Amino acid sequence: MKIVSTIEQVKNLVNQWKSAGQTIGFVPTMGFLHEGHGSLITSARQQNEKVVVSIFVNPLQFGPTEDYDSYPHDIERDRQICEELGADVIFHPTPEEMYPKDFYTYVDMSGLTEGLCGDSRPGHFRGVCTVVNKLFNIVQPNRAYFGQKDAQQLAIIKQMATDLNMNVEVIGCPIIREEDGLAKSSRNAYLSSEERKAAQIVSKAIFAGEELVKSGEIDAEKIVTTMKNIVDSEPLAKVEYVNVVDGLTLKPVATIKPQTLVAMAVHIGKTRLIDNFIVE
Amino acid sequence: MKIVSTIEQVKNLVNQWKSAGQTIGFVPTMGFLHEGHGSLITSARQQNEKVVVSIFVNPLQFGPTEDYDSYPHDIERDRQICEELGADVIFHPTPEEMYPKDFYTYVDMSGLTEGLCGDSRPGHFRGVCTVVNKLFNIVQPNRAYFGQKDAQQLAIIKQMATDLNMNVEVIGCPIIREEDGLAKSSRNAYLSSEERKAAQIVSKAIFAGEELVKSGEIDAEKIVTTMKNIVDSEPLAKVEYVNVVDGLTLKPVATIKPQTLVAMAVHIGKTRLIDNFIVE
Repeated sequence: MKIVSTIEQVKNLVNQWKSAGQTIGFVPTMGFLHEGHGSLITSARQQNEKVVVSIFVNPLQFGPTEDYDSYPHDIERDRQICEELGADVIFHPTPEEMYPKDFYTYVDMSGLTEGLCGDSRPGHFRGVCTVVNKLFNIVQPNRAYFGQKDAQQLAIIKQMATDLNMNVEVIGCPIIREEDGLAKSSRNAYLSSEERKAAQIVSKAIFAGEELVKSGEIDAEKIVTTMKNIVDSEPLAKVEYVNVVDGLTLKPVATIKPQTLVAMAVHIGKTRLIDNFIVE
Repeated sequence: MKIVSTIEQVKNLVNQWKSAGQTIGFVPTMGFLHEGHGSLITSARQQNEKVVVSIFVNPLQFGPTEDYDSYPHDIERDRQICEELGADVIFHPTPEEMYPKDFYTYVDMSGLTEGLCGDSRPGHFRGVCTVVNKLFNIVQPNRAYFGQKDAQQLAIIKQMATDLNMNVEVIGCPIIREEDGLAKSSRNAYLSSEERKAAQIVSKAIFAGEELVKSGEIDAEKIVTTMKNIVDSEPLAKVEYVNVVDGLTLKPVATIKPQTLVAMAVHIGKTRLIDNFIVE
């Protein structure tokens, strides 16, 4: 497995593979890989002849008060994980390689970027769209894999790929959880041991919401109230939002239907965690 | 030569060509083709194995008071021109094919879209970037050809392709002129015969500016004043701007250097004409 840091190196490899008619699976990450990323790499490995993982903490998608500078990293561990899971290449560029001095273009979206995480993270999804657009053009994958945990991100990237007629299939993969239910996230590393215990409340609320839906509840308001009350029972946890929206358009819905997305963001101390479920 | 109207048809053709290792040249147009477009198609024909011409009057790049509804068209004449010049396919989609109901994404730029035509046409270059991005993804050309007449558009598209790591070489081709000097433009069709005579003043000002530079003048202000005075001598003409800018960044410069762009927009009656020259 190779680690390359320049766009030119990736394009050269990709062009060789494409000339040979080989399919490419792509897993874009910000590194500090966990089993959630692992499941994406495994899917990519099963469905494509070549697999590229990118590791890039994208400054463009962090707000000025967010955790860009402290985002966790461990490139050596990431390398081992990618190697074990059968990736062919890690693309690990510098910020300057991705955003040289005279960089002016961005990709943005109306509609789906408002609401949910978009409200508290202005500019975040513009940063996500721009970097993923660039990465798709660099790696030219047949398929790209994203976690369902970042449900809004996944919906937005699917929409971008459709709207801009990009030649890539965007595939969402299920949320991977710790034994106690907490959704795997690189940001879980920020939690103190006390906070880590308290963080269980997030998935508890998610599971309770799911149960309520399975029991036949279709009133979004009631589901939201139940989930908020559960989180509020944990003194270290503070709900940012619990929203019930259409899974594709992300527009709020009052009544649960198949493909409805129930998504939440919760702060545990200084750490912001997100989780969600999709109605079957 | 084929005319196709769906994105799927173009992608199918393009994928066949790419599988066979053939290079693709692309000429995006709004139709009502003239010798300026013709020169682009000819260049594409000489430099690529396959040539695609798109004909699409892009609603997204017209302001609410602009000429979207009256933009001239003659698809049968366009077809003949493309056929004679050896194009392989015309892509002629409907607005609904390019912008279906749930369309949310756009591509925009900071910096280069301000100034020059950007000041009087807010949103214009966002519309241009978005449609060209889509067309590049649909046609997947090796090379795409644009006229130097739309100098700001050319600089912006080059910047977009660079910033987003698009796999296409953007090629600018020289301005083609009528016998009396008027730069070829589909919008010249709007001019009455009296206005058509008056429109000569635009290229006269351009040629005078060029002469001044050739004679050694490097003061941008003096060149602008000379050119404005020439246009002002024509009662039917009204200067919108004469600007001297860096040819790549489009930032104003006070002193002429190689690659400086001298660009102007002039209104003749209700018709807006643009012209420019680049310092060698």
